[in-house]
Amino acid sequence: MAVVVGVIGGGQLARMMIPAAIELGIELKVLAETDGMSAALAVDRVGDYTDAATVLEFARDVDVVTFDHEHVPQDVLRLLVDAGVRVHPGPDALRFAQDKLLMRERLSELGLPVPDWARVETPDDLDDFIREHGGSAVVKTPRGGYDGKGVRVVRAAAEVAEWFATIAEDGRGGALLVEELVDFRRELAQLVARSPSGEIVPWPVVETVQVGGVCSEVIAPAPRSAGRLADVASSVAITIAEGLGVTGVLAVELFETTDNRILVNELAMRPHNSGHWSMDGSTTGQFEQHLRAVLDLPLGGTGSHEAWSVMVNVLGGPAEGTLADRYPEALAGHPTAKLHNYGKLPRPGRKVGHVTVIGADLDDVVYEARAAAAVFQD
Amino acid sequence: MAVVVGVIGGGQLARMMIPAAIELGIELKVLAETDGMSAALAVDRVGDYTDAATVLEFARDVDVVTFDHEHVPQDVLRLLVDAGVRVHPGPDALRFAQDKLLMRERLSELGLPVPDWARVETPDDLDDFIREHGGSAVVKTPRGGYDGKGVRVVRAAAEVAEWFATIAEDGRGGALLVEELVDFRRELAQLVARSPSGEIVPWPVVETVQVGGVCSEVIAPAPRSAGRLADVASSVAITIAEGLGVTGVLAVELFETTDNRILVNELAMRPHNSGHWSMDGSTTGQFEQHLRAVLDLPLGGTGSHEAWSVMVNVLGGPAEGTLADRYPEALAGHPTAKLHNYGKLPRPGRKVGHVTVIGADLDDVVYEARAAAAVFQD
Repeated sequence: MAVVVGVIGGGQLARMMIPAAIELGIELKVLAETDGMSAALAVDRVGDYTDAATVLEFARDVDVVTFDHEHVPQDVLRLLVDAGVRVHPGPDALRFAQDKLLMRERLSELGLPVPDWARVETPDDLDDFIREHGGSAVVKTPRGGYDGKGVRVVRAAAEVAEWFATIAEDGRGGALLVEELVDFRRELAQLVARSPSGEIVPWPVVETVQVGGVCSEVIAPAPRSAGRLADVASSVAITIAEGLGVTGVLAVELFETTDNRILVNELAMRPHNSGHWSMDGSTTGQFEQHLRAVLDLPLGGTGSHEAWSVMVNVLGGPAEGTLADRYPEALAGHPTAKLHNYGKLPRPGRKVGHVTVIGADLDDVVYEARAAAAVFQD
Repeated sequence: MAVVVGVIGGGQLARMMIPAAIELGIELKVLAETDGMSAALAVDRVGDYTDAATVLEFARDVDVVTFDHEHVPQDVLRLLVDAGVRVHPGPDALRFAQDKLLMRERLSELGLPVPDWARVETPDDLDDFIREHGGSAVVKTPRGGYDGKGVRVVRAAAEVAEWFATIAEDGRGGALLVEELVDFRRELAQLVARSPSGEIVPWPVVETVQVGGVCSEVIAPAPRSAGRLADVASSVAITIAEGLGVTGVLAVELFETTDNRILVNELAMRPHNSGHWSMDGSTTGQFEQHLRAVLDLPLGGTGSHEAWSVMVNVLGGPAEGTLADRYPEALAGHPTAKLHNYGKLPRPGRKVGHVTVIGADLDDVVYEARAAAAVFQD
């Protein structure tokens, strides 16, 4: 079996694969964008992941290539596959994570529940859609958006005039994605792992809390999700994983609407912020499961250690100094909190770490996790 | 606070500190004995830990020094302390782990329950002890023994003639340790962590099963230990940690005698095989707790995720190939087993990994852990 996994991208997702790799005795080699990134300990080389020669050279020494992000261009991914490299997730799956229009088309073909959407090439088309959907809509650039970037709620096409200008200049027949503004009760995420052999294992559906488009908190399992909600969420994610040929961890972000529908919002084909709780709360954490999946090893169990797991992101970090300066206070006050430091310099809004607490009483667990994370923020 | 921990020794204990260090955002630098050791990923330099210049040079770039083993000579340790290096555990504590005669003397001074013992300098003294203790006894070389080495059950001094010859040649007034052959029902281990500030946190007492002097299996907590046994074991370990000034993790190996006494067998001042279960079964694993302790950070909670945790060592590994060759079989058959691969080549008797399973039913947990570990052995 393969024992060297190459990870393209050196962020915190690559970093958190390292402990899992150590325990499994797998060597991890990271192609990082720059020096000193979160996954520095496992960096094999620093280079541009959009440069085919760099990526091919990196892939020569590994048994399988996987990713910290979904931004490696399709032509580079296809060169890897043509060169005989095992790539998971592969380019055929990743294009749906790279292009939200393609993703919406494919999910609609699969009969999955999605918000009303349209491909719009002109401001007039967009204004028509807005008019037909109660006077507002969500416009998304099909590519390059994350953590709320490239997503805008608008009441008129004029509010995204510069996006239309950009696709006009682009000259590749570009378009924007427009979606109905969903009236949702809460946001959920369903993670599954799928191996190339087709084994699929879900985790429980979780509730995610976003602030300013950025994930702030995750509750696992989502409160009041047992039964129909859990069944629908896992069935949707399994259909997507199979229908899109995803390998590794797939995160499906969902809306639970005020009229009790479950709609697919976004996809991520990699370990995901909404799965960090699993490192401390589940028999198999998402980083271990991702490695097992991309190596086509049997997947691990996903039972939970306790009734509840709550993960709170540390966003930004302290105004002065480092996270470590706050350890005495955070650890003394919260002995059950599991702290994960991404080794990044604090900067407003930046994800610099997270805290997970597990336990039997949801109120206690939420309180502890929030309180521990708050120590690191001013 | 200190954020670079230097570990002397590159074995699996140093290796298993790496994941904990990554999550805490602590840099780990290892001084390894040779290239390609278990902790290779964090190796800063390769050198001889008995050479003062090598160790001092290594210590220059770290905030605190700790250990994978207890074999760094006292003179080297004292040079480190004199140079202003924070060393945990320090030389005053470590000498009791390095010299079993000193340990027995000190534990007796502290009034702790130990087997009958004596310092013997001549075969005649030893034969007297044997005669007074029913015709047999355990002889130990005070230094350098581990995993059953340097320990021999004898019926006559002639059976350790070469050990007497060695101490005679040594010319340093050496002696052997002799202990009564304890009639024990089972072996236990009590682990605690203690920080330089004096905070002490115990884990539950565990039952350990030794085969041929080597730890084979650990059950946490020790069955039928709730109440008096747990209280005595933790109180003994806390007395030792305080009395000997231990910092970091302390493992106290205990005998539960057939007449219901608890006697101290051996000590280890570092993470210990009997604590590996805590990585998967406890809120705070022993490697994380050791790092927190040596950095004088507040210690973590040690509640258990499930009623039972069972750890089984992988001793030797497969006759041909590597552990990884057996992953498909091991992981498919045992989805709840947590596998820890030390990255060492299989060799008869060598500790090459371990498996932990946690759960509510002890019979199930023992069965699964043994079955998963057995896949790796021929």
